[in-house]
Amino acid sequence: MTNAAPTLALVGATGAVGTVMIDILNGRENWPWGEVRLIASPRSAGKKITVRGEELTVLALAPEVFDGVDVAMFDVPDAVSAQWAPIAAERGAVAVDNSGAFRMDDDVPLVVPEVNGDLTRDRLSYPRGIIANPNCTTLSMMAALGALHHAFELRELVVASYQAASGAGQDGIDRLYAEYAAVAGQNLGTKAGDVRAALAAAGLAQEDSPFPAPLAFNVVPWAGSLKEDGWASEELKVRNESRKILGIPDLKVSATCVRVPVVTTHSLAVHATFASPVTVEEARKIFGAQPSVVLVDDPANGEFPTPADVVGGDPTYVGRVRQALDFPNTLDFFVCGDNLRKGAALNTYEVAEALAARL
Amino acid sequence: MTNAAPTLALVGATGAVGTVMIDILNGRENWPWGEVRLIASPRSAGKKITVRGEELTVLALAPEVFDGVDVAMFDVPDAVSAQWAPIAAERGAVAVDNSGAFRMDDDVPLVVPEVNGDLTRDRLSYPRGIIANPNCTTLSMMAALGALHHAFELRELVVASYQAASGAGQDGIDRLYAEYAAVAGQNLGTKAGDVRAALAAAGLAQEDSPFPAPLAFNVVPWAGSLKEDGWASEELKVRNESRKILGIPDLKVSATCVRVPVVTTHSLAVHATFASPVTVEEARKIFGAQPSVVLVDDPANGEFPTPADVVGGDPTYVGRVRQALDFPNTLDFFVCGDNLRKGAALNTYEVAEALAARL
Repeated sequence: MTNAAPTLALVGATGAVGTVMIDILNGRENWPWGEVRLIASPRSAGKKITVRGEELTVLALAPEVFDGVDVAMFDVPDAVSAQWAPIAAERGAVAVDNSGAFRMDDDVPLVVPEVNGDLTRDRLSYPRGIIANPNCTTLSMMAALGALHHAFELRELVVASYQAASGAGQDGIDRLYAEYAAVAGQNLGTKAGDVRAALAAAGLAQEDSPFPAPLAFNVVPWAGSLKEDGWASEELKVRNESRKILGIPDLKVSATCVRVPVVTTHSLAVHATFASPVTVEEARKIFGAQPSVVLVDDPANGEFPTPADVVGGDPTYVGRVRQALDFPNTLDFFVCGDNLRKGAALNTYEVAEALAARL
Repeated sequence: MTNAAPTLALVGATGAVGTVMIDILNGRENWPWGEVRLIASPRSAGKKITVRGEELTVLALAPEVFDGVDVAMFDVPDAVSAQWAPIAAERGAVAVDNSGAFRMDDDVPLVVPEVNGDLTRDRLSYPRGIIANPNCTTLSMMAALGALHHAFELRELVVASYQAASGAGQDGIDRLYAEYAAVAGQNLGTKAGDVRAALAAAGLAQEDSPFPAPLAFNVVPWAGSLKEDGWASEELKVRNESRKILGIPDLKVSATCVRVPVVTTHSLAVHATFASPVTVEEARKIFGAQPSVVLVDDPANGEFPTPADVVGGDPTYVGRVRQALDFPNTLDFFVCGDNLRKGAALNTYEVAEALAARL
């Protein structure tokens, strides 16, 4: 490491999360970086993207593009990260990876800065030179849950998600808009199969969708791939990543992941049980003290977080905070977080920024 | 009561649920009824509606329309039921009420025929001459839960809902379509407030909506009115009505009710804990033996219930049945039920039909 301003690389600069990352880079007040390198697949190489007033040419992914890079952020599919993050690390960069490739690796910390950011401080915490970023669904509730856990010791978590189409990348966003364009002006959704028929009539084949069922005027109780005993991979990620991030290996978790026709921002209905008694008042105080959490909780005045009201923002928005009526030490609440920002790009950048501070 | 075929009345024949009820009357194979009377507000009186081939004239609500009626089904707002169901009962009818006016009344049974249908058999069970129909959200999961409770004894319930716009009646349906018409062709939902701005630009004021926030490309964590300690009335109904229907006064319940941009069919993510050990295999067997439940649960082949695939059907559709990994005696599953059919009109009619059988 040199004393010069460190070099930052962004791998996957032209994807859905990469595009949000460029937006974050452009909006940042403090700027610790010297050179920035934008990297993508050979197909996207040569594209010009402006970062902080400077037009940069996207470079094709290759081992030598990591030479001299201090921190390399990866916003690419699992297989690409699995292959290239170790190469970046070998060439001397710290890889901050947003894919699922390394999250459960014992030698790779899974970091949410405001929860376990200490793991970015010491190289011994990331011996492979790789730091992982959680899945966007888990991440959408981590800032809020981490703060509560610190105060009351989290024991159990029952979660149902309301996940946005952009969790499946740009393809997911495009599909959602295309489906609504296909059904526009039609009164659908009161007879079984009529949404499917309308999509088929418009030439939108189900097998071309990133989702396993129509999303227009529908919700789809599935996210990810099939794992053991009927669980979806996304549901197991919520369980296993929550345990790892919070450092509670025996945390009890049941998650049901459901896709909804929202473009961006994941929401979660959370039922959280703690070791210590907890009141709504104390929880509100704790949320208020956590800078990355915004409390929007005044139902008498119609105030609670909704995806359409919070998308594009950095914080986790929390509302509907209630003391469970029948379960001791338990809170029920609703969280919304932009799955492309804090749920992906922003958290990755915050880890990169923490690394820059100690280079 | 006479030996002649009994007379059936439908109060609220021209509303959203009433319209579905007409459809149910027209489709029924067995037909125990003689005369049918359609009743509505004076505003809708005089309208002609065909029931089983016979054109009927809608009558204006008045005490004397109940004379000679054996069973009067009420699909009207709470205040109308509160006033008129007792009048119908006084005139000799059994009132089967779909509103919330009498559900928690100790002298009024809350009936789901396949769960506690025995309460329709003996007049002593409904001393006021009124039988109540549960809230549509509760009802959407009752057939499935009742069957499981019978076998394993239900103890705890954590539920998150995905509720359709039609739960708010025809106004809810109209608003959802109007919102999507207003945003059609626009790429919205990636910046806070842009859905609100598009609706405002199209002249759709928020205060004219039956929902407290936009529903297009959004989810809204609110249903009903504000009750104590931040709970929404719909969430307390799920708790209190589940306890009454299942006959478990100390059932532990936490519900979070969320409106989604679906026209019709409520869905619920259910986390249910029982007194006895339960396996997925046993649960599947029990669902298979319950005629009003259809199991759609083969995620390997993309099969799970979604609102768009089951709307318009009578059964409760159950899928994603999983053994909770960390909670003993606990199942996680997803249910979908048409909130206007089994969730409202069908259940009411099934109660009326059970009464007809013993007249």
